[in-house]
Amino acid sequence: MELLKQKIQKEGTVIGSNILKVDSFLNHQLDVQLFNEIGKEFKRRFEGKEITKILTVEASGIGIACITAQYFNVPVVFGKKQQAVNMDPESYEAEVFSFTKKNTYQLKIAKRFLQPQDKILIIDDFLASGNVVQALLKIVKDAGAEVAGIGIVIEKAFQKGRDVIKDSQIQLESLACIEHLEAGKVYFREE
Amino acid sequence: MELLKQKIQKEGTVIGSNILKVDSFLNHQLDVQLFNEIGKEFKRRFEGKEITKILTVEASGIGIACITAQYFNVPVVFGKKQQAVNMDPESYEAEVFSFTKKNTYQLKIAKRFLQPQDKILIIDDFLASGNVVQALLKIVKDAGAEVAGIGIVIEKAFQKGRDVIKDSQIQLESLACIEHLEAGKVYFREE
Repeated sequence: MELLKQKIQKEGTVIGSNILKVDSFLNHQLDVQLFNEIGKEFKRRFEGKEITKILTVEASGIGIACITAQYFNVPVVFGKKQQAVNMDPESYEAEVFSFTKKNTYQLKIAKRFLQPQDKILIIDDFLASGNVVQALLKIVKDAGAEVAGIGIVIEKAFQKGRDVIKDSQIQLESLACIEHLEAGKVYFREE
Repeated sequence: MELLKQKIQKEGTVIGSNILKVDSFLNHQLDVQLFNEIGKEFKRRFEGKEITKILTVEASGIGIACITAQYFNVPVVFGKKQQAVNMDPESYEAEVFSFTKKNTYQLKIAKRFLQPQDKILIIDDFLASGNVVQALLKIVKDAGAEVAGIGIVIEKAFQKGRDVIKDSQIQLESLACIEHLEAGKVYFREE
């Protein structure tokens, strides 16, 4: 997605060979106009797929998921990283290690928001190690529902997150796929 | 806002005299169609106000803030509750006690996303004790910016959160204002 790549080149900051900081438009300040273009592009890429629900993870995934949901006319459910006193005791869970926060948490989704008949579109801001997507795949499987597709805004191809869907038929679309980060520069994979 | 009140009556669960659970449409599963009606209503209530940015807090505020931002054509910035390794070291901070998570955290916003010329619309899902709004007011003040208004989806009037803006001229709008919760029922304040 050209507009997104331009935005990454213009506003992204590369730290070392692993971190791409895009907090001016994707995960701290949110460029909602850009999110709308992202939502339309996900709709185009998953055209014809039956989707009943969008699944994401707090916090950075929520904005993109909500804007995207407008193009699919479906609700969003987001995985929670912390237990709140008023959360359902009945939840699906999966363990995730966060590289940016250096901790392990239990990702939770209340059971009543995932039904066996659901066709899930997973949406997230980044695909890096694939830990989060793997946890969501486990949760959807535990619910007996089906993953209809995975939509990622930025894929860091060198961190191999895509391996979590190998040997499956799941369609994974990333709108900007990064081959590597080097000397402050972003190198995209040719499409 | 009648549609919202109907939704609360239909899907909300009252626990004791303090907790209203609305996770089927507001803070776990997200009803994006309803969010659009909420966004339109905020636009109507703050019509004519100059707004340059919407400020909210992760996680439940983000979806509502993003959908609402479409009607104001402005970006969203959300306060972070946890430190991430790739966050700016330069941030505004304020302490918040969370009643639902039973912990105290430092709410952080990177300094570069708040400028003295900003006119801020604060958006959040709930106004209860007012802790979060108070923290955001402090942060906006520390940035030398101005709060143009506060938009709340559900106000629990009996928890006195509105007191945080008394003696100020700030316009606070809540789309559903709850007088009290009793015996499993929600009693709205007459408008």
